[in-house]
Amino acid sequence: MSLLDNLNWRYATKKMNGNTVPQEKLDYILEAARLAPSSSGLQPYTILVIKNREVIEKLKPASMMNERLFDDVSHLLVFASWNGYTQERVDEVFDRTLAERGLPGNTMDDYKNNLLAHYEPLGKEWQTNHSAKQAYISFGMAIAAAAEQKVDATPIEGFVPDAYDEILGLKEKGLKSAVVLALGYRDEANDWLVNLKKVRTPKEQFLIEIN
Amino acid sequence: MSLLDNLNWRYATKKMNGNTVPQEKLDYILEAARLAPSSSGLQPYTILVIKNREVIEKLKPASMMNERLFDDVSHLLVFASWNGYTQERVDEVFDRTLAERGLPGNTMDDYKNNLLAHYEPLGKEWQTNHSAKQAYISFGMAIAAAAEQKVDATPIEGFVPDAYDEILGLKEKGLKSAVVLALGYRDEANDWLVNLKKVRTPKEQFLIEIN
Repeated sequence: MSLLDNLNWRYATKKMNGNTVPQEKLDYILEAARLAPSSSGLQPYTILVIKNREVIEKLKPASMMNERLFDDVSHLLVFASWNGYTQERVDEVFDRTLAERGLPGNTMDDYKNNLLAHYEPLGKEWQTNHSAKQAYISFGMAIAAAAEQKVDATPIEGFVPDAYDEILGLKEKGLKSAVVLALGYRDEANDWLVNLKKVRTPKEQFLIEIN
Repeated sequence: MSLLDNLNWRYATKKMNGNTVPQEKLDYILEAARLAPSSSGLQPYTILVIKNREVIEKLKPASMMNERLFDDVSHLLVFASWNGYTQERVDEVFDRTLAERGLPGNTMDDYKNNLLAHYEPLGKEWQTNHSAKQAYISFGMAIAAAAEQKVDATPIEGFVPDAYDEILGLKEKGLKSAVVLALGYRDEANDWLVNLKKVRTPKEQFLIEIN
């Protein structure tokens, strides 16, 4: 099946059936997320892969209308973005990139220094938002990969980021929870959304062509 | 080829060869972008599909280090997010969704009113960022779709949003340019990046497993 077929197949599952996503499918989804592009290749985010039922229970009160969905999910992926760009973080990425490419360690110094000089005055809030945006590209890839593997995936913004950060110990890691993907399998008999038509903005309205 | 194969094939092309992306491939890419999920299904963004060379020329001075890339691109996609959530915009989406699903027009009034009451105090800047994040999911789908179609796609954040908004008349439309995707075909002989290894954060560092 093509990506378009997969995107038409998927929907924001509201009721899962409790089945577990096999490790090889999970690995596939996470690898797609890892291969996503990001601004300057920084990948300024981490994915928490949560299978532990106790942790999922703890997250429920901070998960608004998704509380009941969590009863039957297989895994939760929490995309957590960097709370800011630092010299140390950026150095690590550039050092790794140059080492893996067999290039001298100073090859990209000008680019890197310009980047840090650009980010610094924009402030931590801007930087956290910018990091989160990169995480959303990866989030999109994970959604596409799950659909390809016929794993259901519910995109979730209905949660309290500060509470998630506290429960998951993200602040100490310099991270901020940005967006969540619940993985599992649809319970067709009990999901009110499964048979409703997928609705999108009509093409003529969604696109502005400048030919 | 699988999504993973496609993601490994793609890279941020730095030099295109001037060939044009056929309409059916362009349509495919835009359809994937249109099918992307978004928070509450609002799809709070528009894609400008720019083929016009004069307009591309005008954007060059506001496109930083991507100026030369633009010489040989086939199309530029500018993802432009809503500059805020309004009753009118949200009503339109909910009205359409209910109509297409054959449901009474007031079915989701509580949900919709809660949504607007939640967004309103967060302010226009938060709302614009939130809309842009949704656009980044769609941006990810467009990148995946392009790779599937063996169309090269360069993700671009290196541009001046205010200048783009001005040139493209986005402010009058209540839009703000968020991110850009250049489409075309790689010029293998002249692209310095084409043969360099793709580098990503190692899996062990990218993921935190809570089993």
